[in-house]
Amino acid sequence: MKIKNDLILRAARGEKVERTPVWLMRQAGRVLPEYREVRAKMGGFKELVETPEFACEVTIQPVDILGVDAAIIFSDILVIPEAMGLPYQMIEAKGPWFEKTIKSAADIAQVRVAQAEDLKYVIDAIKLTKKELNGRVPLIGFAGAPWTIFAYMIEGGGSKTFSKAKKFLYTQPILAHQLLQKITDSTINYLKGQVVAGADMLQLFDSWAGILSPEHYNEFALKYISQICDAVKDVPFTVFAKDAHFARKQMGMLNCDTIGLDWTMDVAESRLLIGNNKTLQGNMDPCLLYSDFATIKTETQKMLKAFGPHRHIANLGHGLYPDIEKDKVKCFVDTIKEYRF
Amino acid sequence: MKIKNDLILRAARGEKVERTPVWLMRQAGRVLPEYREVRAKMGGFKELVETPEFACEVTIQPVDILGVDAAIIFSDILVIPEAMGLPYQMIEAKGPWFEKTIKSAADIAQVRVAQAEDLKYVIDAIKLTKKELNGRVPLIGFAGAPWTIFAYMIEGGGSKTFSKAKKFLYTQPILAHQLLQKITDSTINYLKGQVVAGADMLQLFDSWAGILSPEHYNEFALKYISQICDAVKDVPFTVFAKDAHFARKQMGMLNCDTIGLDWTMDVAESRLLIGNNKTLQGNMDPCLLYSDFATIKTETQKMLKAFGPHRHIANLGHGLYPDIEKDKVKCFVDTIKEYRF
Repeated sequence: MKIKNDLILRAARGEKVERTPVWLMRQAGRVLPEYREVRAKMGGFKELVETPEFACEVTIQPVDILGVDAAIIFSDILVIPEAMGLPYQMIEAKGPWFEKTIKSAADIAQVRVAQAEDLKYVIDAIKLTKKELNGRVPLIGFAGAPWTIFAYMIEGGGSKTFSKAKKFLYTQPILAHQLLQKITDSTINYLKGQVVAGADMLQLFDSWAGILSPEHYNEFALKYISQICDAVKDVPFTVFAKDAHFARKQMGMLNCDTIGLDWTMDVAESRLLIGNNKTLQGNMDPCLLYSDFATIKTETQKMLKAFGPHRHIANLGHGLYPDIEKDKVKCFVDTIKEYRF
Repeated sequence: MKIKNDLILRAARGEKVERTPVWLMRQAGRVLPEYREVRAKMGGFKELVETPEFACEVTIQPVDILGVDAAIIFSDILVIPEAMGLPYQMIEAKGPWFEKTIKSAADIAQVRVAQAEDLKYVIDAIKLTKKELNGRVPLIGFAGAPWTIFAYMIEGGGSKTFSKAKKFLYTQPILAHQLLQKITDSTINYLKGQVVAGADMLQLFDSWAGILSPEHYNEFALKYISQICDAVKDVPFTVFAKDAHFARKQMGMLNCDTIGLDWTMDVAESRLLIGNNKTLQGNMDPCLLYSDFATIKTETQKMLKAFGPHRHIANLGHGLYPDIEKDKVKCFVDTIKEYRF
């Protein structure tokens, strides 16, 4: 099916666009009252993720309400460890929690490589959303990057330092590579399945990239991201490694189209490090959206100027915070859509 | 009193040293069984901080046990907000908690500028430790940087995003500057008092530097750090802004002697950005100390080579984690002390 608004796909490929396209990480979520209504009907976050009809509904909400240039399938990066054999719970106001974690070679041997059909509910949600979107905007699929998934599988939840996961890298590097390879293979299967189901674009989220040393990031993270980029090639591909300021040069050499920047990364410096062959995505501080409308407008225009008219997909430098007002988000989106170079 | 081992002071001033000096952030703490013994005798962390005899005892422990080239006074960065009128509790396994937080202009008006005598227990602990150290190694005094202290005063505790504190910067910039100025004035009084009491060197910790955009970091953080550097000049001064990779160039222009690096910051790149007029401190990943002895040795030697023989004070890129084995810490320290260029 022909996509009517394909600005984001063209920007990712480095083609000319009439204006900078925009979407927001966590655009489908608590920031929208309409999402909170659907959520209130459900038992919890995971039921929403696992019910294609509801996942589809909340995925499309920001397209209707905020007017963004892409939808991103409502899901979670932790569906992969679950499909590999480590189920998780999402605990309100606390975050994810895994009953079983990985401690030994035996644990790693027990973990299976996931297939796309193990995540049928996501695949079905993508198919349904694709149909319901009816070609209005592209649909983005996604997965967590292997190091971030590994970190959760070792820690069993969030952490300030992720020192258990890092300890595993320092003390059991061979086992770490075995597990990372299984996660990578699972992720490739999963992302390929998302493309077959209809995803028009893909993003890899490396949420805990910034906790590793540059050396470890090369050895235990980029190596596997690179495998995924090489294996999944049919649609534009974005890598967002939060806080990995030190890896920007190497990310410029990945076989992908777009690199996500967080708000601590200077735009000109990032362009210099990453080179001209990538589209850059980002990178407004999410907290700007607490400001008044005039400030949001001015700062957003400044950001657009810093990136320039080509090879930019506008976004925040991280996900939307749940207590931001919807109208402030809309102001950010509208400012971008109205801006002309 | 003449200090026998003044390697760290000379390295900070850019003078030649026979070998690279070393100390560790959080060297006085749970990593030492001897600390845990003292701690078990006390009611809790704060009682330890507030009792000069005990603070002195645990401050000197790592000099005896680990053989580091400096002692750092056992205290907490949150003594400043407490002295300004916001008392805190240190909750086991959770971190600091403030009953009162800053929400309005009236709250800021109520907050007082602290004097050194408001923190008599720290001043007394420094005097006592100075005497007990008897010139063996220099004694480091410290404080939190204004933005980090501000963040705690607004949030009332730790946070993943510090979005309340950042929201305050975006929505109440004038009030934010008023509070930051009061914190800065308090910190100057406090650090000057530490020097009078006998501190041979000072360090400012900006623990939450990395959460701000480069623009906000300039406006709300560096501006005040700069005031402090200009005001407190009698002893070598170190600024450690964790995760502020984007501010390294500007930090090179501060009126201070040493810049601390975290483990995500490449040494050569940092030297280039900061320039040759500063000593660099750091920057081993604390998790390296989970490795076997051979790996610790090799990686520590690699770090020393990367920094070179001049203008380097060896340290970790963050505080010691409490579950590291003492002998591993000693291996790190010994490797540095044995190394010759």
